Amino acid sequence: MKYVLYYWSMIQGRGEFVRLALEDAGAAYDDAARSGDGMSAMMRMMDGTKGTPPFAPPFLQAGKLVIAQTANILLYLGSRHGLAPKAEAGKLWVHQLQLTITDLVLEIHDTHHPLGPSLYYEDQRGPAKKRTDEFWNERVPKYLGYFEGLMEEGGKAYVTGRKATYVDLSLFQIVAGLRYAFPKRMKAFESEIPRLVELHDRVAARPNIKAYLESDRRIAFNEQGIFRHYRELDA
Amino acid sequence: MKYVLYYWSMIQGRGEFVRLALEDAGAAYDDAARSGDGMSAMMRMMDGTKGTPPFAPPFLQAGKLVIAQTANILLYLGSRHGLAPKAEAGKLWVHQLQLTITDLVLEIHDTHHPLGPSLYYEDQRGPAKKRTDEFWNERVPKYLGYFEGLMEEGGKAYVTGRKATYVDLSLFQIVAGLRYAFPKRMKAFESEIPRLVELHDRVAARPNIKAYLESDRRIAFNEQGIFRHYRELDA
Repeated sequence: MKYVLYYWSMIQGRGEFVRLALEDAGAAYDDAARSGDGMSAMMRMMDGTKGTPPFAPPFLQAGKLVIAQTANILLYLGSRHGLAPKAEAGKLWVHQLQLTITDLVLEIHDTHHPLGPSLYYEDQRGPAKKRTDEFWNERVPKYLGYFEGLMEEGGKAYVTGRKATYVDLSLFQIVAGLRYAFPKRMKAFESEIPRLVELHDRVAARPNIKAYLESDRRIAFNEQGIFRHYRELDA
Repeated sequence: MKYVLYYWSMIQGRGEFVRLALEDAGAAYDDAARSGDGMSAMMRMMDGTKGTPPFAPPFLQAGKLVIAQTANILLYLGSRHGLAPKAEAGKLWVHQLQLTITDLVLEIHDTHHPLGPSLYYEDQRGPAKKRTDEFWNERVPKYLGYFEGLMEEGGKAYVTGRKATYVDLSLFQIVAGLRYAFPKRMKAFESEIPRLVELHDRVAARPNIKAYLESDRRIAFNEQGIFRHYRELDA
């Protein structure tokens, strides 16, 4: 079975967390973003009123199933591709961590869109500056400090131990994205999270991820996605 | 096995979505919010660095398991208490809907805290007014219109059909909370979502929910929770 991933064509966005899992697993998938009518097919699927229409992308077609919500897609893929523990306790734990990353991703998005997703950044520069300051003063230390703490137990290679899960792939993306969006702030902060930086490098060196990052399938970071570089927010 | 629910003691907050499921299921649980040292026990569990410490409340102790993230707790409870379909497709679908409700809940919270959760409302009144306008103009019609659409197929009593799931309980809470926080705006909007209003009433009439709502276990809405009534935001 070949999966089809539906997501906006010009950005990494939330779809990237799914792409990283599919790529690391070496799963066969079509990326609707790269097919001629992929975007219109995506819109039609969301407009559907019968069955189980997704509220928003990303969503994954897996045979007859259409699964939306990033963490839910990873829950599904994790079981099938060895990217999560098999036992229920481990599965719930990894999913719980992914949901915490989901919360962090939304807070990252809100740094440039504090007044809501429907207005342009240019119309909310002042509030964005305030929100970004608060994000770096309060939230980054709390979130990244939490994940750094999870890595502290006994020289683990990955968050849950010796095997990578989708959470490790997502944490790679968080570090990479924060470096892109806030190079100065992140540079000053990285000494606080040495284990997460190592984790980033370890994930980047996994053969399938390395090949993916070097391919043209990896869309570059840009100012339409979640991680946006606005110089005035990185001061 | 008796569950223990850990959540802040003075508010409904995110913990309420879990309480509604526990109450509807008639599950035996202790609410840490109602025990003498519940809050300090909760803080100790979050401070732990070993095992699987939660990032934030709510979390549920279920025997040896400690499960955090509202939607994750409901995923766990849903399977055990008949509040979710048993087959994988249905389970993923209901979880996906709950994660969309999670997104909505965060946007509701952001109406009064657009500059972030660490600052007081009083320090962000102007941005809160703008975010609230945008929320009611763009986001409420999109989210509630989506759930209303799911109820349109063939006279279903609940979102997935004849049986209630934790998603129905959560949608009850969304309608109740929006009525509390924005009575004027919600009154004007309710004609757009007749099926969700019916769903709210149907859930409120379920015997265990009815008994819960009339009990002193139901904390009243207030201005420390997610749904806050600020008159200036309801104009």
